[in-house]
Amino acid sequence: RLRPVSLARVRLSDDFWRPRRRINREATLPAQYARLEQTGRLDNFRRAAGKIDAPFSGVYFNDSDVYKWLEAASWTLCTDRDPDLERMVEAAIDEIEAAQRPDGYLNTYFALERASERWTDLTHKHELYCAGHLIQAAVSHHRATGGDHLLRVARRFADHICDTFGPEEEGKRPGTDGHEEIEMALVELYRDTGDRRYLDQARYFLDVRGRGLLGGREYHQDHRPFREMDRMVGHAVRAVYLNAGAADLYAETGDPTLLAALERLWHDMTTRRMYVSGGIGSRYEDEAFGEDYELPNDRAYAETCAAIGSVMWNWRMLSISGDARYADILEHVLFNAVLPGLSLDGQSYFYQNPLSDGGSHRRSPWFGVACCPPNVARLLASLPGYFYGVCEDEIRVHLYAEGDAEIPLEGRTVGLRQRTRYPWDGSIEIEVAGEGEFGLALRVPAWCQDGSARIEVNGETFHGEAVSGDYARIRRPWRPGDRVRLTLPMTVRPVESHPYVAENAGRVALMRGPLLYCLEQADNPGLDLRDVVVPIDGPFSAEYRPDSLGGIVALRTPAEVARPDEGWEGRLYREARPRTGEPRRPTAGVTAVPYYAWANREPGRMLVWLRAR
Amino acid sequence: RLRPVSLARVRLSDDFWRPRRRINREATLPAQYARLEQTGRLDNFRRAAGKIDAPFSGVYFNDSDVYKWLEAASWTLCTDRDPDLERMVEAAIDEIEAAQRPDGYLNTYFALERASERWTDLTHKHELYCAGHLIQAAVSHHRATGGDHLLRVARRFADHICDTFGPEEEGKRPGTDGHEEIEMALVELYRDTGDRRYLDQARYFLDVRGRGLLGGREYHQDHRPFREMDRMVGHAVRAVYLNAGAADLYAETGDPTLLAALERLWHDMTTRRMYVSGGIGSRYEDEAFGEDYELPNDRAYAETCAAIGSVMWNWRMLSISGDARYADILEHVLFNAVLPGLSLDGQSYFYQNPLSDGGSHRRSPWFGVACCPPNVARLLASLPGYFYGVCEDEIRVHLYAEGDAEIPLEGRTVGLRQRTRYPWDGSIEIEVAGEGEFGLALRVPAWCQDGSARIEVNGETFHGEAVSGDYARIRRPWRPGDRVRLTLPMTVRPVESHPYVAENAGRVALMRGPLLYCLEQADNPGLDLRDVVVPIDGPFSAEYRPDSLGGIVALRTPAEVARPDEGWEGRLYREARPRTGEPRRPTAGVTAVPYYAWANREPGRMLVWLRAR
Repeated sequence: RLRPVSLARVRLSDDFWRPRRRINREATLPAQYARLEQTGRLDNFRRAAGKIDAPFSGVYFNDSDVYKWLEAASWTLCTDRDPDLERMVEAAIDEIEAAQRPDGYLNTYFALERASERWTDLTHKHELYCAGHLIQAAVSHHRATGGDHLLRVARRFADHICDTFGPEEEGKRPGTDGHEEIEMALVELYRDTGDRRYLDQARYFLDVRGRGLLGGREYHQDHRPFREMDRMVGHAVRAVYLNAGAADLYAETGDPTLLAALERLWHDMTTRRMYVSGGIGSRYEDEAFGEDYELPNDRAYAETCAAIGSVMWNWRMLSISGDARYADILEHVLFNAVLPGLSLDGQSYFYQNPLSDGGSHRRSPWFGVACCPPNVARLLASLPGYFYGVCEDEIRVHLYAEGDAEIPLEGRTVGLRQRTRYPWDGSIEIEVAGEGEFGLALRVPAWCQDGSARIEVNGETFHGEAVSGDYARIRRPWRPGDRVRLTLPMTVRPVESHPYVAENAGRVALMRGPLLYCLEQADNPGLDLRDVVVPIDGPFSAEYRPDSLGGIVALRTPAEVARPDEGWEGRLYREARPRTGEPRRPTAGVTAVPYYAWANREPGRMLVWLRAR
Repeated sequence: RLRPVSLARVRLSDDFWRPRRRINREATLPAQYARLEQTGRLDNFRRAAGKIDAPFSGVYFNDSDVYKWLEAASWTLCTDRDPDLERMVEAAIDEIEAAQRPDGYLNTYFALERASERWTDLTHKHELYCAGHLIQAAVSHHRATGGDHLLRVARRFADHICDTFGPEEEGKRPGTDGHEEIEMALVELYRDTGDRRYLDQARYFLDVRGRGLLGGREYHQDHRPFREMDRMVGHAVRAVYLNAGAADLYAETGDPTLLAALERLWHDMTTRRMYVSGGIGSRYEDEAFGEDYELPNDRAYAETCAAIGSVMWNWRMLSISGDARYADILEHVLFNAVLPGLSLDGQSYFYQNPLSDGGSHRRSPWFGVACCPPNVARLLASLPGYFYGVCEDEIRVHLYAEGDAEIPLEGRTVGLRQRTRYPWDGSIEIEVAGEGEFGLALRVPAWCQDGSARIEVNGETFHGEAVSGDYARIRRPWRPGDRVRLTLPMTVRPVESHPYVAENAGRVALMRGPLLYCLEQADNPGLDLRDVVVPIDGPFSAEYRPDSLGGIVALRTPAEVARPDEGWEGRLYREARPRTGEPRRPTAGVTAVPYYAWANREPGRMLVWLRAR
């Protein structure tokens, strides 16, 4: 089991994440706070506190956006001083506290005239979900700033919840949450306070799923008890939040039946129900997982929040197992399923993330259901905390980016400095500022061909194992200034999907390093991207373009252009004839850009899965 | 412009339609009537009439199911005596009449305590839709039986509607229907009564679309005026019902701007937004059309009602133009998109008609929203009316099946007798019982390769044009006993789809004659259908199986079995490598059955689009 390394101890000074986190702090968070005001989300708290007389504004789960924003802002204050942001945080916490009822209950939708409806519709009305986000925000705020103002509010509400929900024989009300979130939150509250009651309450909420309290639908993961689940079904965000909560419970209880279910579900998701981007959720209807291999590209749902939930779940799986495959998915989802959700300027968002589009799918500055914007913000704000882990006397390096860390290790502190241009370049130098024998484990990504990653220690080849999809574990007596160099192959990789994914038959997606690529109309004027046929065996060239899309490595390859022949004019179907000979087709150079950067220029067609020969 | 030939004058004595229509009469209609009772649909009328004291039961548009059932039963009584059915019809009409308000208004949802809500939510509440089905049922009942009992009820309601809706300057209430249907119905009422007011009212309802009265959404075809439409969008059933109504209006007014829009929409649907089955509606969300070439197979919506609406629209396009391409689509949709909606025993129904399924999609004996069951019933009941048309002194034969017809032609009656085993066999003999010169036009289906259809008149080769996708027009002085033989090629045709339908790339669907085929697990034990690779150039054999699925021609072909290789174990994506050499694969004979007959045996996988080489 890995211990996390607090984001307070990790500093990113790279050109990929640092500018994104600065935009998050300087542009995204203030703009989101303004939205919270404009849309009445903060007024809802003032209203519940009796400060203003106005109708409730927006959707019944709008409190959660305030809490998620607070979590994002708190993590930001942990790594960066920002007095303006601090004032916003304090103001929001004051409004929240004032809206709390004397019994600890806190939800602005169920205030005043709706107070009598409290807890009457757990299946649909998100009260426990909002409570979970309050608790999560409070724990984050406490950890990030040391302040316990919000934590006291959250504990009062958590205590109220613990008093209210439980087995009938204890005089409580049976029930669980229609939208999972509180499981993770209560485990975190237990970790932060040491009060075991919260852990027990989280376990209660998990254990009563699948007994029909929510109506028994797959949509709510209520179709069977958690420990009997073996397929990822229903609403995708709910499903991964549930699994993240179950992983937290496993981390604190060691209950092996939880781990077994988690491993089954992870295997199901990653081998049958996940886009090549790492996105999840194949259906618009119910924002849900589909059947095995049901992965439509145009109509991918792949909600940004579901990708964030997958990062959260994979992070917990990594922490409880130390297994690099979870870090592989975590990194992959981060780059290719979370990041596309945010525009390069940090001001607009995707809710759905299709893998193919005709040019009409564009980011929006906000949504009526605004779950995704503050979710992206809290992930970016907490990102440095995902870089490292510690297991006994071994440091695990999960992610790579230029920067420094001060890692507590068995009573001492080990400094690490990463020097790299990752994800654009595969060379990563790590300078170790520490003394004595301990382990340094570097993740060799699964996307490296076996044997292709090279490691040198102080200029000498490392002869230990460096298996892709695992950690290369370097154990030695270290001296200050020791340098380890990991070199990952940054070749372009055409990737194919399982033959049962019907839509991708005969197609490849291009990857380089951890990044998925796509074609965009903007780089390929005059071409219908649907006609492009790329060569599986290349050649592919990679070229750094500092002025394009915030600085990217673009890919180039000579492709064939296979236009539909004249016989298709005005027809959708025709009799098929056996092909005779190879068609002669014109060729054209095509340019691919990282998928995370798509839809940041003029609208146009975008395509991930390319016809291949 | 073609005049229809009443179903009263057409008798089907074949082995394909006749048994289906008998099941419709003997099993389906009585079972549906029992459902109308069990589900409270008839009680809703009794309640509105003050006969019983009970809450309204079901959905707010449930009246329409009673009306559609009445239409089906009426057409049935036109061709077959059935005293039991007659009693049910009379009983239902009595209940309906008793529920009518003194002002002519009639809707059981907006009765009693909801009377004040009448006409307050045309966008969502289907009042005009239900009214349309009442009027349609009344006209059908009048035409089929001569009785005007229901017609008087319908006219009173229609008059009320005409008094209520119209331009503000006439002192009326502007408005139109959120679910189209009343346009067709009012034109039919005009035809039946000669009262031009109904025609004008239908035109009013069409003309005010696209002006925001319904909120301006594509879903309701309210995004722009009808004459400016060029893409099939929104809810698929609504869209084709609207077009059928517009075609009726064109038929009676000759307004060329209507025809231009209809032709644009038809071209759009048939070249970009129609399944190979003829089904329409690509999305579960909103039961709607998708983007161009968006035709997912597993998640096809392809609602049975939308296919029926397409038959209705194509029938009207055929009538106003005489163009055989509409008859081609009509026949294709009938066999391959409507018929799959009904089980072979006539007792259960598909709402959605996917073109690929893992074995979980099964027909249901009824639905909460039960639009499809009575819709199938009314189409089967009225089917003989789709076989022939008359244009001046020419008889058009649109459809083929063993049977007789007595066709009124310029003051005399011409008898036609079809002898054929179509759709299983391509030989169609037509014996003409008539004298004098007139035209007989036989449809040569578009699926025949040019020049492959042969025609003989009294044993001698016909040397006139017999172009596929058009009518072969035989004009001569006829004598009683003249025989025309049309021979259509019944070769198996592998069909491919436009390269922009991504999911079907590298795949073919098998057709023979007018029928689409599919593979079902039941015929291919031990094979994963997803592994089957069929040869584009055959050989294919066709074999009549009288005991299978009610009697079908099954297809056989030797296929390759391409199982996913071992490298796919536990993976969804992998690096693609260039193929070297042809893989050696085991072969297996596979059997295909008509798509309309799928899911009538034990559950199992089904596949229309087959991998091909």
